[in-house]
Amino acid sequence: MSITMHSASVPVFVRLLGNLTAWLDKAEAHAAAKKFDASVLLGMRLAPDMLPLKTQIQIACDTAKFTIARLAGVEAPKFDDREATLDELKARVSKTIAFVESIPATQVDGSEERDIALPRRDGVLILKGETYLRTFALPNFFFHVTTTYALLRHNGVELGKGDYLGPLQPAS
Amino acid sequence: MSITMHSASVPVFVRLLGNLTAWLDKAEAHAAAKKFDASVLLGMRLAPDMLPLKTQIQIACDTAKFTIARLAGVEAPKFDDREATLDELKARVSKTIAFVESIPATQVDGSEERDIALPRRDGVLILKGETYLRTFALPNFFFHVTTTYALLRHNGVELGKGDYLGPLQPAS
Repeated sequence: MSITMHSASVPVFVRLLGNLTAWLDKAEAHAAAKKFDASVLLGMRLAPDMLPLKTQIQIACDTAKFTIARLAGVEAPKFDDREATLDELKARVSKTIAFVESIPATQVDGSEERDIALPRRDGVLILKGETYLRTFALPNFFFHVTTTYALLRHNGVELGKGDYLGPLQPAS
Repeated sequence: MSITMHSASVPVFVRLLGNLTAWLDKAEAHAAAKKFDASVLLGMRLAPDMLPLKTQIQIACDTAKFTIARLAGVEAPKFDDREATLDELKARVSKTIAFVESIPATQVDGSEERDIALPRRDGVLILKGETYLRTFALPNFFFHVTTTYALLRHNGVELGKGDYLGPLQPAS
């Protein structure tokens, strides 16, 4: 099997979003053990001018969602940014996983040279599909996923590299 | 052009390591403006049981280096973990970029099904090349790069998403 635009994107998003869900479970358990309201975590920031945990997770989801929608040339589902609890954030993650898994691999494959329209503050930027995946979509996705992890670790949730990576699949 | 094992790895590492070098330049300027010794930053951590900035950068480099060496089936150069300044860390980043760029794309391409030996605490894990890239190498690389960024932001260095992503290349 050769690497493809689908194999380089959907499984990466699904895997890390699944791992992230498990971090949120640990965050809930941590809050229960320490007897604080878990939703306090949604507002935590690493710096005053960085986005809070809630927004980090929303953008991680949206990056996965829009990446696959744009590469496949389909409309992305709309998610309102109204989450107020870890459970609601987990539901958004689940909806994101379900959407990216719903797109047939054949629709994403072959998108290397497709023109992708990326809305930016100062207009729309057109990138080739593979350039978009490599220089925007994957780095942006990992940025928000890793910042979520860093925020949880910084706030005392017991996580390790194994939680970040998830279980590795040995060659059979 | 189709996506390949080389196009999905080397340009990602080179790009983000280049961006990281620019963050270290800004960290140095920040330390100079605030009149503190920039090497203090090397020991900063987001949590007491997380690795410090210096080690985050060393592992980001080593992940890039070992990924390409393993996929290509060549020996990776050895870097001693003796960096004590931002300049020395930047030199390690440069050596890493030079090494991964020195490997011909044809040696990395076609490595999807190659058996990759990944040393772990409890022995050696054998992963198929593409599984290794997707589930270990890229996530681990982005983990350490993004944690470096988070540490600098948390410690007052003025960086934004544009610094993280670097300039995007519009389709011609």
